[in-house]
Amino acid sequence: MTLSELAALTGGRLASGVDGSTVVRGVASLAEAAEGDITFLGSPQYRALLTTCNATVALVPADFAHVVPPFLIRCDNPAKAFAKVLEAFAPAPVELPRGIHPTAIIGRDVTLGSNVNIQAYAVIEDRAVIGNGTTIGAHAYIGQDVQIGDDCLFHPRVTIMHRCTVGHRAIFHSGVVIGTDGFGFEFQGGRHVKVPQNGIVVIGNDVEIGANTCVDRARFGRTTIGDGSKLDNMVQIGHNVRLGNHNILCAQVGIAGSVRLGSYVTIAGQVGINGHITIGDKSMIGGCSGVVKSVPPNAIYVGFPAVPAQEWKEQVVYMRQIGPIKKRLDIVEQLLRDSGKNPPSQT
Amino acid sequence: MTLSELAALTGGRLASGVDGSTVVRGVASLAEAAEGDITFLGSPQYRALLTTCNATVALVPADFAHVVPPFLIRCDNPAKAFAKVLEAFAPAPVELPRGIHPTAIIGRDVTLGSNVNIQAYAVIEDRAVIGNGTTIGAHAYIGQDVQIGDDCLFHPRVTIMHRCTVGHRAIFHSGVVIGTDGFGFEFQGGRHVKVPQNGIVVIGNDVEIGANTCVDRARFGRTTIGDGSKLDNMVQIGHNVRLGNHNILCAQVGIAGSVRLGSYVTIAGQVGINGHITIGDKSMIGGCSGVVKSVPPNAIYVGFPAVPAQEWKEQVVYMRQIGPIKKRLDIVEQLLRDSGKNPPSQT
Amino acid sequence: MTLSELAALTGGRLASGVDGSTVVRGVASLAEAAEGDITFLGSPQYRALLTTCNATVALVPADFAHVVPPFLIRCDNPAKAFAKVLEAFAPAPVELPRGIHPTAIIGRDVTLGSNVNIQAYAVIEDRAVIGNGTTIGAHAYIGQDVQIGDDCLFHPRVTIMHRCTVGHRAIFHSGVVIGTDGFGFEFQGGRHVKVPQNGIVVIGNDVEIGANTCVDRARFGRTTIGDGSKLDNMVQIGHNVRLGNHNILCAQVGIAGSVRLGSYVTIAGQVGINGHITIGDKSMIGGCSGVVKSVPPNAIYVGFPAVPAQEWKEQVVYMRQIGPIKKRLDIVEQLLRDSGKNPPSQT
Repeated sequence: MTLSELAALTGGRLASGVDGSTVVRGVASLAEAAEGDITFLGSPQYRALLTTCNATVALVPADFAHVVPPFLIRCDNPAKAFAKVLEAFAPAPVELPRGIHPTAIIGRDVTLGSNVNIQAYAVIEDRAVIGNGTTIGAHAYIGQDVQIGDDCLFHPRVTIMHRCTVGHRAIFHSGVVIGTDGFGFEFQGGRHVKVPQNGIVVIGNDVEIGANTCVDRARFGRTTIGDGSKLDNMVQIGHNVRLGNHNILCAQVGIAGSVRLGSYVTIAGQVGINGHITIGDKSMIGGCSGVVKSVPPNAIYVGFPAVPAQEWKEQVVYMRQIGPIKKRLDIVEQLLRDSGKNPPSQT
Repeated sequence: MTLSELAALTGGRLASGVDGSTVVRGVASLAEAAEGDITFLGSPQYRALLTTCNATVALVPADFAHVVPPFLIRCDNPAKAFAKVLEAFAPAPVELPRGIHPTAIIGRDVTLGSNVNIQAYAVIEDRAVIGNGTTIGAHAYIGQDVQIGDDCLFHPRVTIMHRCTVGHRAIFHSGVVIGTDGFGFEFQGGRHVKVPQNGIVVIGNDVEIGANTCVDRARFGRTTIGDGSKLDNMVQIGHNVRLGNHNILCAQVGIAGSVRLGSYVTIAGQVGINGHITIGDKSMIGGCSGVVKSVPPNAIYVGFPAVPAQEWKEQVVYMRQIGPIKKRLDIVEQLLRDSGKNPPSQT
Repeated sequence: MTLSELAALTGGRLASGVDGSTVVRGVASLAEAAEGDITFLGSPQYRALLTTCNATVALVPADFAHVVPPFLIRCDNPAKAFAKVLEAFAPAPVELPRGIHPTAIIGRDVTLGSNVNIQAYAVIEDRAVIGNGTTIGAHAYIGQDVQIGDDCLFHPRVTIMHRCTVGHRAIFHSGVVIGTDGFGFEFQGGRHVKVPQNGIVVIGNDVEIGANTCVDRARFGRTTIGDGSKLDNMVQIGHNVRLGNHNILCAQVGIAGSVRLGSYVTIAGQVGINGHITIGDKSMIGGCSGVVKSVPPNAIYVGFPAVPAQEWKEQVVYMRQIGPIKKRLDIVEQLLRDSGKNPPSQT
């Protein structure tokens, strides 16, 4: 697109004297923009980045008064204007082959809805059910008696083990594994004997699951992921976990067996959650935390063991004060000693 | 099954006046049971859950005297009785296709035992050896010269790289990767130069490995996983690690290179273990810990850096006392100041 | 090889009276050497291991004067000599089938360089470009418009999503997933609505990526991995992360969105890095740390929240002193009380 076209698209004003026919080929953030890119100044705090920015043009607020390398388009709301630019530059959606690829292996008594796409080398085992408009990616493995809803998009190499169910509009990324055995053993005669894991995984509607994430099947009953929940990459969900609706679980989170999460919970990256506890509705757990006990609703917890965020911030400050406290105590004891008292001497 | 059949199966007593022909279709825990399910009260502490439970029937102790929504079957040991119910309701085991699927690719000089099952699109490279009764799942990759014992079950999409060996009765879940290169580089001339990883992985008998877990091959010699050890999902085992027998490693544990674990060790979820250290027999490491130094046998360590569990518990309590200590010290100093002493003033 | 041949290879001196025709079949470290192995004493601190070592022969320093079980070859630099032995014992490199396997699926308008090897059941989508001498492993998925450079080695089961680019000489291990959607949602009307992830991943030259590691595509623009960077297994790289050159990221590291790493950075295992921060050139982060704020160049940080290593070491020491400090303060307060002062009593 040309600068003139971009000014028109964003409802912005191109700085005077600029050649409106200059062509822009890509979009990028301030920090990574190169020649040929359009970028934007979302907040005055990033203004310094504009002075070293190689972008061809930048969207800036209407009252922006500085001289910087990129050409400028002034507009009322650069962030909103940039969203329009992003849409305009969005690549065409990927068009995968339609229908059932001749190399896909479809078992007996499989039920396929209308407009189902199954990519190369996918394996669909007996009695699986796949809903209307669903796409199963290359190298997928869909186990026996699995049920998948409508309009799902499974990227390449997704594994769903037998009898698990997935709702409508799921998006599963490459390497997802749903329904492997829960990790359960009984210690008998010096050996860990496998406890049968006969339950399933039940996944609601509008769930997105990131690359290489694992959800274990229940020992009996169900491991559940509620409607609208979003799991990032390499998340671990243990057996019999019950995840409510609209939860956000960031990358590398691990949730041990039988944990119950409410709804609208946010768990930041790498958090570990101990087995058999509850995280209440709308609570948030800060990244890298280890949650040992149940967390009430509407709380923010951080640390290991996780505590309310305010308490954790105090702990971090206090940690730096132990040294000074020790020195003050040394002086107090010396003063007492000088006045004939007798605190035990420290080494 | 009907309530009468369930009472007979468990040796329990159906509450009087209940219609014994009522049908139960599933098993579930107290917390997730729905209509049509049978559940059980394993401990009096969960009694409150019974009052909101939607199960059709619950197994309760013989002396249970409360009125709750589900029908009741009273029995001497509800937990043991429930185990029988679980068996009765266990789904039929999955029956995968027998023999060598026509799409499986078998290299030259591969040795297959009797009753080997190889599923669709598996690739078995030259000179691999697969023992009697072993099942290799769909999309598996078995590298050159790999040796796999008898009666193993590899779920779909397992990778075993060249020359690694696996004992008898292994269960590997989807996405397992055994024998990729250890992470070793030499810094030369401003670059990280790859150190050849020429060793292998040797896995004993009765080992279970969870989904997407990775075990690196040794730089030279062997990375070993001893008999009866169980690894959960997304565990990382570095090169030249030596894991003894009957260890339990929970999800997302990471063990750096050349660590030695004894036997009967338990490592809870997300623990990280520093390279080149030893964890003694029968020791346990609490979840989310970072182990920096070797741990003796029969110890329980927690925290980062991990310390004996008792010490960690004290630290957690002490952390909360730094604030109060500081306030007490302020007062002591003020008292001294009031009596003409001169501790330095605090800001 | 015989002991005489090994002495000649290493330029070492076989202890007198030893039968030089004794055959050695393998190499191993002191701790794991068995009969038939050659090992070496790299440092005097490991001497005790030699006394219990089952190796057939050990390389030791020229002045080594102790009597131990293995036969000895004395040499000037046992570590360097052992490197020669490792080379001599290195297994022949794996020879995979050459050319395009008949089961590989090659889309329309794919460009293949010379000497490209594509293994069984790989899927190469439309318009992908694969450079000279590159090997694509079995079960790979190479998306539409992906560009891969020369002399790359992709082990089995690598996924590269559409439009991502990889430089020359990349080594990707089994289960790598490049270019899945970044984890971005907008909260609208009680639901998390997916924010389109239209950017790509750009990977430089000489990059090695470990098993099951995931790199997310940018929201727009690029997620970049610089030249010579090495990522271990199960590392998570969020969207729009910019990784410089020659970085080392150990296993299970997680880097949240929009983080910028300089060059020659080392991140130890299981570290989590908060979104939108910067880690300066040549800095190191200790294992299991959680990095909350930006880290300057040439720094070493550890802990959660990560602080300079020296400060962290002090904190660890201080943690053990809170108990003693509390006891000392109790005594001080008692002394003051005894002399008629009145600090508040503690419970």
